[in-house]
Amino acid sequence: MTNHPVTEIIEALGRLRLEKPLVHHLTNYVTVNDCANCVLAIGGSPIMADETDEVEEIVSIASSLVINIGTSNRRTLESMVTAGRKARKLGIPSVLDPVGAGASLYRTQAAERLIRETGPAVIRGNSSEIRCIAGLSAATRGVDAAAEDTAQGLKADIETVSSLAKHLKCVIALTGAVDIVSDGDRTAWIENGHPRLSAVTGTGCMCTSLIGAFCGSTSDPFIAAVGGILCTGVAGELAAEETAARGTGSFHSALIDQISLMDGDTITEKARLHVS
Amino acid sequence: MTNHPVTEIIEALGRLRLEKPLVHHLTNYVTVNDCANCVLAIGGSPIMADETDEVEEIVSIASSLVINIGTSNRRTLESMVTAGRKARKLGIPSVLDPVGAGASLYRTQAAERLIRETGPAVIRGNSSEIRCIAGLSAATRGVDAAAEDTAQGLKADIETVSSLAKHLKCVIALTGAVDIVSDGDRTAWIENGHPRLSAVTGTGCMCTSLIGAFCGSTSDPFIAAVGGILCTGVAGELAAEETAARGTGSFHSALIDQISLMDGDTITEKARLHVS
Amino acid sequence: MTNHPVTEIIEALGRLRLEKPLVHHLTNYVTVNDCANCVLAIGGSPIMADETDEVEEIVSIASSLVINIGTSNRRTLESMVTAGRKARKLGIPSVLDPVGAGASLYRTQAAERLIRETGPAVIRGNSSEIRCIAGLSAATRGVDAAAEDTAQGLKADIETVSSLAKHLKCVIALTGAVDIVSDGDRTAWIENGHPRLSAVTGTGCMCTSLIGAFCGSTSDPFIAAVGGILCTGVAGELAAEETAARGTGSFHSALIDQISLMDGDTITEKARLHVS
Repeated sequence: MTNHPVTEIIEALGRLRLEKPLVHHLTNYVTVNDCANCVLAIGGSPIMADETDEVEEIVSIASSLVINIGTSNRRTLESMVTAGRKARKLGIPSVLDPVGAGASLYRTQAAERLIRETGPAVIRGNSSEIRCIAGLSAATRGVDAAAEDTAQGLKADIETVSSLAKHLKCVIALTGAVDIVSDGDRTAWIENGHPRLSAVTGTGCMCTSLIGAFCGSTSDPFIAAVGGILCTGVAGELAAEETAARGTGSFHSALIDQISLMDGDTITEKARLHVS
Repeated sequence: MTNHPVTEIIEALGRLRLEKPLVHHLTNYVTVNDCANCVLAIGGSPIMADETDEVEEIVSIASSLVINIGTSNRRTLESMVTAGRKARKLGIPSVLDPVGAGASLYRTQAAERLIRETGPAVIRGNSSEIRCIAGLSAATRGVDAAAEDTAQGLKADIETVSSLAKHLKCVIALTGAVDIVSDGDRTAWIENGHPRLSAVTGTGCMCTSLIGAFCGSTSDPFIAAVGGILCTGVAGELAAEETAARGTGSFHSALIDQISLMDGDTITEKARLHVS
Repeated sequence: MTNHPVTEIIEALGRLRLEKPLVHHLTNYVTVNDCANCVLAIGGSPIMADETDEVEEIVSIASSLVINIGTSNRRTLESMVTAGRKARKLGIPSVLDPVGAGASLYRTQAAERLIRETGPAVIRGNSSEIRCIAGLSAATRGVDAAAEDTAQGLKADIETVSSLAKHLKCVIALTGAVDIVSDGDRTAWIENGHPRLSAVTGTGCMCTSLIGAFCGSTSDPFIAAVGGILCTGVAGELAAEETAARGTGSFHSALIDQISLMDGDTITEKARLHVS
């Protein structure tokens, strides 16, 4: 018998805070400070390193790897591939954030190459990024882009995520109004979160980094993905409540606050998580 | 009959919040997070991308382009030129922030090249940057560097800005104690702002990004420049008031807050804007 | 007769606020915004520039140079060496932060090369970074890595720092639970600080940048190092007190606040500084 995901997430969070796993990032320069502070806030230890000459060594001492292509370039893409291949070889889980896949051929091909060559444990993206990857892999077809934000859109997204997870043999996490996570076998959807999360840059990246941190304290990437998304969503709700009358600068700071204050009781109380 | 600039700015802000224009940035890694958050706060949608292989594609789907040379290097400068040339070809307005022009030959030549090859709709800089560019273009001469911060300095700066705008056939915005904007025909000066704006890094960059966001919702770059500067100045005043007894970390956060809370009534009440 | 270090630090802080020295940084993209804001908060003027073509010109107009290898790559390492050599030639003091020395061969060799080729006035690192450098230089041996955080560990660290300072003929600053600074002749240890400083990324980098700012207002790098560390520690204590019930986002913002509010009375009241 397996535990309920929430129980497993709370246990993983406890281990995270105890063991402070090292989370190697190759990420964008826009939101990197927030990613590092999120990882610290949830209990992990971030290290950012993207020089090709050192990434194999750095990833070898890490518990997990986060690859985010938000501002990648030809040089850093090579480093990402190098780090990701080494991680796979060593059995260190990696999380891929294919930022902007579909917005340029470069990004689409970068995402495709990273998936093929590094075998991520988790891929997290928004609806258009995940649909782009699903299109690439031909694991799904005919998803109506206009269907999003409707009940049918949700159903289509669940189908996309689940098929893609089966096809790529990894965890797919699509975050949006409702977040969907699947490893092809189990599928969860999460109704936590708040519209203000999209008024601050990098909350998607932060979510990916939290998944990376959880990957350092559980061997189940499905639990890691649900855990990272749940913490982001619940922290977003609490921060929005706390700063309701204030602007996005205050919300931004309160979001990091709430991640650092996250605990089992808050998760138990606030989680709106469904698993099938 | 044209409307008063404040009316046009308020209308442009309304469209910005409705249409969420995509604002492509090639900018520095120091203040990029604040630039992205400012663009979101005012209602736009930022995208940062500087890989030469993708900038033409990215700028093609954007409503405006922001080029900021704060930490440019040979690689990113090529991307800036490539993106800017594509934007010009497509009629997408670009805003140039020639950070540090005059401080090194590299920066002066980068600014000169970007002006010549990309034809920005707006150039925003501080007094020494704009004077450096004016010197390059030989549109003005004999501006006494020691004259700044005096009534004569203001008059000289207005003359520099207006001549340079005529010469380069674009909008020139010089921000300082008094901000001056000219398209060669119309000239505005803005007395909003607060000394604390210079106690936080990147408030100039943020102003440039706000101009870029406004360029996505008005076809008049003069209005976009005045709008971006006015929002920065008014937000700076309100943030300084709100955090009077606190330090610069609080001011920084409050500045983003106030940009996100900016509305027509606040602009109407606070604007100290003169047009000739 | 020399003054007590605290007196000299307070005088240097006064000059810093008056003269606003330009502090050239070649630093990492993770914490660069905080470094710039810290330098502004303490009274200096930061400039970030890492293009090889311009670093000699930029450092020539600066009062001091900060080199931080946190996310260096082959390109920026060349720029760091170029800037540091020029600074040495011109007698402009440089501060080196060998982030992650020991974590990869690349970083260890980068630190070694920068020390050899640029002759920093101050090297600031944590225990493992300083021990790595001490190992390289063979100035010390047999330091038990497990000894840290004990009285014996402190004694061993003081010995390491003092020997290394003598050997490298520069100021060595090791920051941790207790901070140790030595120029080989004078040795200081500082008991200010707060555990929450390690819950935010980049407080070590910020400390290095504050040392760089102080190097712009005193010709004694030992005083600059003690001053930068003292301001970081005291600000950390005050920020922790102020945000005791809140999370790390609030602490982060309050830390910058407290640096900007730092003054002689606060330093006199709070300093827990010992000199031998």
